[in-house]
Formats: sequence, C-alpha cells, structure tokens
Amino acid sequence: MINHRGPEFKDLLAKVTADLRTVFQTEHEIMILTGSGTGGLEAAIVNLVNPGDKVVAVSIGEFGERLADIARVYGADVAKVSVPYGQAADPQALEEALDRTPDARAVLVTHNETSTGVTNDLRTLAEVVRSRPNGGPLLVVDGVSSVGSIPLKTDEWGCDVVISGSQKGWMAPPGLAMLAISPRAWEAVEACKCPRYYFDLRQARKYAATGQTPWTPAVGVFYALRAGLELILQEGLENVYARHRRVAQHCRDGAHELGFELFPDPAYASNTVTCLKVPAGVDGAALPGRMRAQGVEIAGGQGKLKGQIIRVGHLGYVHEADIDDVLRALRVALGEG
Amino acid sequence: MINHRGPEFKDLLAKVTADLRTVFQTEHEIMILTGSGTGGLEAAIVNLVNPGDKVVAVSIGEFGERLADIARVYGADVAKVSVPYGQAADPQALEEALDRTPDARAVLVTHNETSTGVTNDLRTLAEVVRSRPNGGPLLVVDGVSSVGSIPLKTDEWGCDVVISGSQKGWMAPPGLAMLAISPRAWEAVEACKCPRYYFDLRQARKYAATGQTPWTPAVGVFYALRAGLELILQEGLENVYARHRRVAQHCRDGAHELGFELFPDPAYASNTVTCLKVPAGVDGAALPGRMRAQGVEIAGGQGKLKGQIIRVGHLGYVHEADIDDVLRALRVALGEG
Repeated sequence: MINHRGPEFKDLLAKVTADLRTVFQTEHEIMILTGSGTGGLEAAIVNLVNPGDKVVAVSIGEFGERLADIARVYGADVAKVSVPYGQAADPQALEEALDRTPDARAVLVTHNETSTGVTNDLRTLAEVVRSRPNGGPLLVVDGVSSVGSIPLKTDEWGCDVVISGSQKGWMAPPGLAMLAISPRAWEAVEACKCPRYYFDLRQARKYAATGQTPWTPAVGVFYALRAGLELILQEGLENVYARHRRVAQHCRDGAHELGFELFPDPAYASNTVTCLKVPAGVDGAALPGRMRAQGVEIAGGQGKLKGQIIRVGHLGYVHEADIDDVLRALRVALGEG
Repeated sequence: MINHRGPEFKDLLAKVTADLRTVFQTEHEIMILTGSGTGGLEAAIVNLVNPGDKVVAVSIGEFGERLADIARVYGADVAKVSVPYGQAADPQALEEALDRTPDARAVLVTHNETSTGVTNDLRTLAEVVRSRPNGGPLLVVDGVSSVGSIPLKTDEWGCDVVISGSQKGWMAPPGLAMLAISPRAWEAVEACKCPRYYFDLRQARKYAATGQTPWTPAVGVFYALRAGLELILQEGLENVYARHRRVAQHCRDGAHELGFELFPDPAYASNTVTCLKVPAGVDGAALPGRMRAQGVEIAGGQGKLKGQIIRVGHLGYVHEADIDDVLRALRVALGEG
C-alpha cells in the first residue's frame, strides 16, 4: 500500500481525475470520495441543499426515491415528480413542477434507473431546467449506472453535479464515488449551511489542490479505476457507448425470443440493464437462484417490483457472448419452472 | 466481483464480523461501513449525539481534535479536555470535566493518537466514565490505530462504541470502517434525532440481519480484511500485541542510538507509531523525502508539529527486521543533513 500523502498517490489522483473528466465530458472539477454511489448522492445533497430549501425530485423508480429520501432526511422540502414504474420522466410534468416551485434550489434526476430499466431523456429534462430564469435550479444527476456506458454530456447539457460509482461502467470494485461539479454548483457548496464533515466537498477541493484527499482514500480501488479508465479510453468513448447499445439490443432480442416482454417503455429501455416481465406461471422470485446455480448473476425486482421482474445487468466489460451465456441459462431456468 | 446481495457476500460478511468480534473483544454487534476511519468517527457522532447535546472530548492531538470537530459540526456542545501535545490524557481532568458537565451525552476519546505517538490509558479513563451515575455518559473510542495491535477490551472496559479502519492493524487496504456497538449505545442510536442517511446505523443493523449492507460495500476490501483477520487469529491476539510491544521498543532503542529523543512521554509511548523529535540542526521537513528516496515511508508532523517531529509507523505485519531497514535509512538521511 502506498502513502496516500505521498507523490505516487498524487500522480494516481491526477491521472484518474483527468481521465474521469474525459469520460464525464466536463472541463470542470471532479471530486473522488471514498464511499458507495449512495455516499456520492448524499455528498451532493448535503453540500448543495440547505435545510428548508425546496427541491424538485424527478423519481421514476427506487433510486429516484432514494435521492428524494436523502434530501428529505437532510431537511429539504421535496416536491416529487413521479411516473408509473417502467416509464421515463415527463419533461412537461417537470416544467409544471418548476412552475409550482419557482424558488426550487435544485432538481434531482436519476439518469439511468436500474430498478425499472429506464434511461431518462436527460438532455431534454436538462433543457427544461436550464430554460428557467437565471439558468434555473441546480441540476443534480444520479449518473451512477450511466456515466461511461450511456452518453451523458455533463457540460454541454448543463448538469451541475453528476455522480457515479466505481463499480459500475468503470469496471472497478465498489468503494469510490465520483462527482463532477460545475462552477455554479461550487458557489452553492461554499454557501451551503447544511452540516457536513466526511463528505464536505470544500475539504475535498482543498486537499485535491495538493494532490490528496482529506481522509484516507480507498487506494486499491483507485488503481482499479485507473485501469478501467484506460480500457474505456483505449476502446474510445463512442465505441463503448455503441457496444452498450448493441449488447442491450442483443439482450432484448434474445429475451423476446424466450417469451419475455420488456418491462419498461421500449422507447426508453436502458442500455446498461434490461428489465423483463416475469412470464405468467413462472416463479419470478426463484429465477435469480436458478440462474446462480448455473453461475450467472441476475437480479430480481426491488421494492414493489419484487417477484414481478428480473434484471440483467450489462455494463462495463460486457459483450454479446456474455449475453448469450445469460440467455442460455435463462432458458434452462425457465424449463425448471 | 460477487453480487453483494447474494449468498457469497452473506458468508463473507458473517465470517469477517465474527472474527472482528474476537479482535474487538466484544460479544456485541459490529457494523462495517464503506468509508475511511473518519467516516466511522462521523457515523458514531451522527448516530449518538443530538444537536445541542453536551459531549466531553478528550483530545491529546490532531485525531482528538478531529473527533471533537465532527461533534461540533453536527451541533454538539463540546467541552474539551486537552493536554500539551506528547502527553496522555489526565483521568483527574476528565473527572473534573464530568463534574462540570453532569449531563454529558458522551465522552469522546482517542485510544492511540498517531499525531503525537501517545497511547492513552483507556482502561483508567473508561473507569472514570463508568463510575459516574447510571453508568456514565456513552464512551466513544477512536480505536482506528489501536484495535488489533494494542490491547483494547471493548466489553470488559465498558466502551460503548469503538471505531477502527481497515488499513491499520488489520493489514487490509483502506475503504472500510468498523464499529463495535454496545446495547446501551444501540438505545441511543434508535433515539437519536441527528439527521443521517449513508452512515445510518439503524439501516446498517437492519441489513446486517439479512447478511447484507444497505449500500454497495467495498467488496474487495472485505476479502482483504478477511485475510488480515486470519493472520491475526493464527498468530494469536496476545502474540500480536506482544510483537507490537517488541517492535516498538526496538524502534525506540534504535532511534535513541541515532541520537533521537522520543517526542511523547515515554510512559505512554505508542506501540504502533513512534514519534521522534527532530534533532537540532536537522531539517525535519526534509527527512520524509530523503527516506522515501531510499524506499522507506515515514511521516512528518501534522498541524502544529510540522517540521518538529517524524513518525515511524509499525502496525500490522511488521517485524524487527523492518525497523532495522527504517533505522538504516534514517542514519543515511541524517548524514545527508
């Protein structure tokens, strides 16, 4: 293990941060915190939202609910914009919510909702926010399962804070949260009155300027993240996006042949996770266990979707052949039903 | 990477937790959070201390100050018991502080203060706390750099919360914080009104009961922690303590021969880190760089001790031969001055 206050870590941090900027498509600062993606979401809230501030939370599933819950726990007055699970957020509904909440401090959006397999049209949602007076409220984007796998243009679309986590498209183990932060978000960070310490972005920024982190970082995950970023940049960001599109289509087509219907609205189906309705007569809760017995990990439904859907993840280092393995196992698992 | 909601992780979590209990010398619950040791300190504060609560913070160095700062940031009314750097906490001064603050919610103590190389007499300090009416305030112990290397009897001494971090005596990379929590601390956790989400121990406990963590854990560090625990238990806890005592004495003796004076009061010199006064005429700030050039990592002083001391860490998998390497490099580095 290297000294996290020494020159090797300084170089590692600089390299990872520079490459993250490329993948986040931002020219602004990126902070890396030791914690899960949820820790990154909490960091965004406690650094931007004062207790009592109004926020508009666009929620289309469990992770949208989580972001709204974090804001509520820390004292925000949360107006939620929801849709039935499986649908994408409605830009018109966001517009109306902002009309009702003209003094909102922030809009919270999940880019890719893994609980329902839906990717929001973030570009259009961001336009709605940005077209409000004075550039609109701060736009906070949960990009945990999208950045690096699905196009997200942080600066061009006007996102103020975009959060991701090392174990997703980055192909590293869990343990680091990354936040891209716009200059106007930094102004809010400096002015924010919400108490915070471990996730205080002011401290993170102060130490980043010297090539360090305020607290001991998960150094091992930094090395893995550096390797993952090299793979992404070698393949080329556009090629990575295209591969995720191809692999997702392959998964949807194959599942359709097996008799599965897609759970989400097909126009917004995610390219990093495919959510499928459990066919009538099949025990949905048993499918993940039957897949695991064949060496394949899939997930069941979360929260109110428990037993009703299965979820196949395909982000990071995944190719068509991996999907073929999943589909073969799924055919066997169905036969066992 | 395994599924952190699957059976392999459940087994891993159960094994690590059971072994941690042995090393923490507790029969009570241990929660493992993804974050640094500082994250663990924050978890203790936000789960136990209500805004406005009085706490007594025993501070003998930078890490004592950090724990007091965290309490202050989250709204506690902090009464500090300090000593000149290099000395151990004074039980009599703690007694007097508790007389002045009979309604203190908690006492915060750093067991082993790595900024000054002092190990507090935690057993005696705990007796002072426990002899107060109704078992006294909650005793929160920063054991980040002591548990597993220096004797700390969590239950026998009556510590309510003891915090450690995976990169210390556990010989694993950084990324996990571990908290031992007494039954009466759990009562305080359940009643505590401080807002918290990521570090909410109620959630950690709820998920631990099903073999999971609420948020994605740093799985890779769990594997390393399991391996570190196996090493500790194979060697035997008492043997590990004895080795740390031996290695520390070897370091102090060798440094003395090189003309260094110990910075802390020798009666309380730490067995996991040796702090040495920089001899007159030697550029203290330059020593870590000259050591690094020889492949040896030592640290300089933090905060107000910058340039005045050097710190040699010797915890975890360290033997006399490693100290000999350090001393040889130190002799060369001194010659270069």
